[in-house]
Amino acid sequence: MPLSLPIALDAMGGDKAPEAVIQGARRVLKEFPQTRFIFYGREPVIAPLIARSRSLARASQVVHAETVVAMDEKPSVALRKGRDSSMRAAIDAVADGKACAIVSAGNTGALMATAKFVLRTLPGIDRPAITATVPSRHRPVVLLDMGANLECTAEYLVQFAVMGDAYARAVMGMAAPKIGLLNVGSEDMKGHEEVKEAHQMLRSGNYPIEYHGFVEGNDILEGTTDVVVTDGFTGNIALKTAEGASRLIYETLKSAIERSFLAKIGYLFARPAIRMAMKRFDPRKLNGAILLGLNGIAVKSHGGADAKSYANAIKVAISMVENQVNEKIIAELARIGRDKNATVVPITVPMVD
Amino acid sequence: MPLSLPIALDAMGGDKAPEAVIQGARRVLKEFPQTRFIFYGREPVIAPLIARSRSLARASQVVHAETVVAMDEKPSVALRKGRDSSMRAAIDAVADGKACAIVSAGNTGALMATAKFVLRTLPGIDRPAITATVPSRHRPVVLLDMGANLECTAEYLVQFAVMGDAYARAVMGMAAPKIGLLNVGSEDMKGHEEVKEAHQMLRSGNYPIEYHGFVEGNDILEGTTDVVVTDGFTGNIALKTAEGASRLIYETLKSAIERSFLAKIGYLFARPAIRMAMKRFDPRKLNGAILLGLNGIAVKSHGGADAKSYANAIKVAISMVENQVNEKIIAELARIGRDKNATVVPITVPMVD
Repeated sequence: MPLSLPIALDAMGGDKAPEAVIQGARRVLKEFPQTRFIFYGREPVIAPLIARSRSLARASQVVHAETVVAMDEKPSVALRKGRDSSMRAAIDAVADGKACAIVSAGNTGALMATAKFVLRTLPGIDRPAITATVPSRHRPVVLLDMGANLECTAEYLVQFAVMGDAYARAVMGMAAPKIGLLNVGSEDMKGHEEVKEAHQMLRSGNYPIEYHGFVEGNDILEGTTDVVVTDGFTGNIALKTAEGASRLIYETLKSAIERSFLAKIGYLFARPAIRMAMKRFDPRKLNGAILLGLNGIAVKSHGGADAKSYANAIKVAISMVENQVNEKIIAELARIGRDKNATVVPITVPMVD
Repeated sequence: MPLSLPIALDAMGGDKAPEAVIQGARRVLKEFPQTRFIFYGREPVIAPLIARSRSLARASQVVHAETVVAMDEKPSVALRKGRDSSMRAAIDAVADGKACAIVSAGNTGALMATAKFVLRTLPGIDRPAITATVPSRHRPVVLLDMGANLECTAEYLVQFAVMGDAYARAVMGMAAPKIGLLNVGSEDMKGHEEVKEAHQMLRSGNYPIEYHGFVEGNDILEGTTDVVVTDGFTGNIALKTAEGASRLIYETLKSAIERSFLAKIGYLFARPAIRMAMKRFDPRKLNGAILLGLNGIAVKSHGGADAKSYANAIKVAISMVENQVNEKIIAELARIGRDKNATVVPITVPMVD
């Protein structure tokens, strides 16, 4: 499905807003000239910046929003008091059918709370999950939840598994993605109650997914499964730990090589290959976490995103729209619902005869 | 304090037991010739292996134990039925004052449950925590809990902070270790109830530690704090994720360099420097997690440990004994108890006059 509607951008969200948002949109426009944008934010500030690029100005609309949600605002406060904020206005645009997706680099908690309130969840989904894609040994791995739900019931985890499956199929084109549940060991007895219960449910065969079983921390980047499901507390920490570890090892090796003159010479020649190999791990290429499970497409960019990084978040939104991910999640959940009903029917006892 | 008693070794625990245990002990003996060992396990199997090294045989005793705790045994079952196991016998030796520490590469859950039952916890400690040391940008970082307590109250987390502080001071010689509490963000409002409550308690000034505040996943290997406190579920996954990420980046870079001929030549010359730099990240050098908070020293080796790796776990036990870590934790907890009482006194109302 081509983009028939513009993308709503919270022009004021993020540490480098509005510059990074506007330059990010400009980058996307070069690659996808058919894209249209609506920028929400302080018109006197953003309009002149957009006007600097004629092509961007032609593809864009600016809608004034008086306030900005602060990065340290409590989600409940942002929801109550942020009605005239750029974030709220951009989300409203999706609900009102004026935009096909919303992208924001603002306060994550506020974005999730507001988007959930305005857009509601997909039928069959209780809680949306922040979904990220990380590089692994062979191919990218889908990780959810990355921080929306710090505590999760078994049901939430199962819903995340179904959403992750639909996402991997729709956006990443995988035929039968393997789904893993993150735990402290692979044996059935391991883990806390919620994770053990979710394991039993996923193993029951009631869900049309390829459930692999428990996976451990080291399996994430090993790519043991295509999707890794966990609660938002653990997922957030695992993701950031992996980022920190990657950076440390990379920098340690680089400085060890640079201290050796001959290795340095060799490194100069190997640099293209090394850069190519490391490109997969560039966090900017991974920017753009989806608030999956909402009845509307919302993408969260990292707060510190630069233009290149922000552009990637917009591209994630485009890919969500073009691949009709939400439609596919609805279809998959409906199928599970039907299958469940089908198995329930024979054991129902008529109450009246 | 020099080692006045032998170290009890569960000779049958671990995937490569008893060979890795015996060869590990032999390596330690070369470095610390004054060390003595008691090997617990199937005497007909282990005695001949020990006899191969005259020096090890002279430094060792073998005590027969009929059974072995299986790696997938439930902790409760191991505790109930494992009374004649090598693991239980080795732990008993510490309780009976025959050994100064016990090392096992066996079933973690069984080791924790049995050690807790036999040795009990230190006064003031409710739950022991699995404590590991990981490399960071500048110096090693103490991490706890790595998997003993999958769900933690705020009180447990606070006790872990105090134990981590004592450990960093005693074993790592830090004067005023900075303590961080792992969370999904650094703002006070972030996190689930337990972590927020622990944060308030640690900030109260009632604990004589340098509390830094919340840290995030990327702070662990960045070395933002000297000690990182978290629950066992998150800690286990963070540790294994960091291991996986380090391995992936290292191998990706290495193969990119090896594909380039010139870089390969340079690499040959840089190899000593690279090896030196990477040595810090060798997981074998990090083997040996302490069951901190027990009234006795128990060290868990990785189940798949080889001799070199196992030797490191024994050295961790030696360092625990020599640095009198438990004595220091007791002293620190007693001091906190006194301080607490001191602040309580003025507001107590005499019941009888």
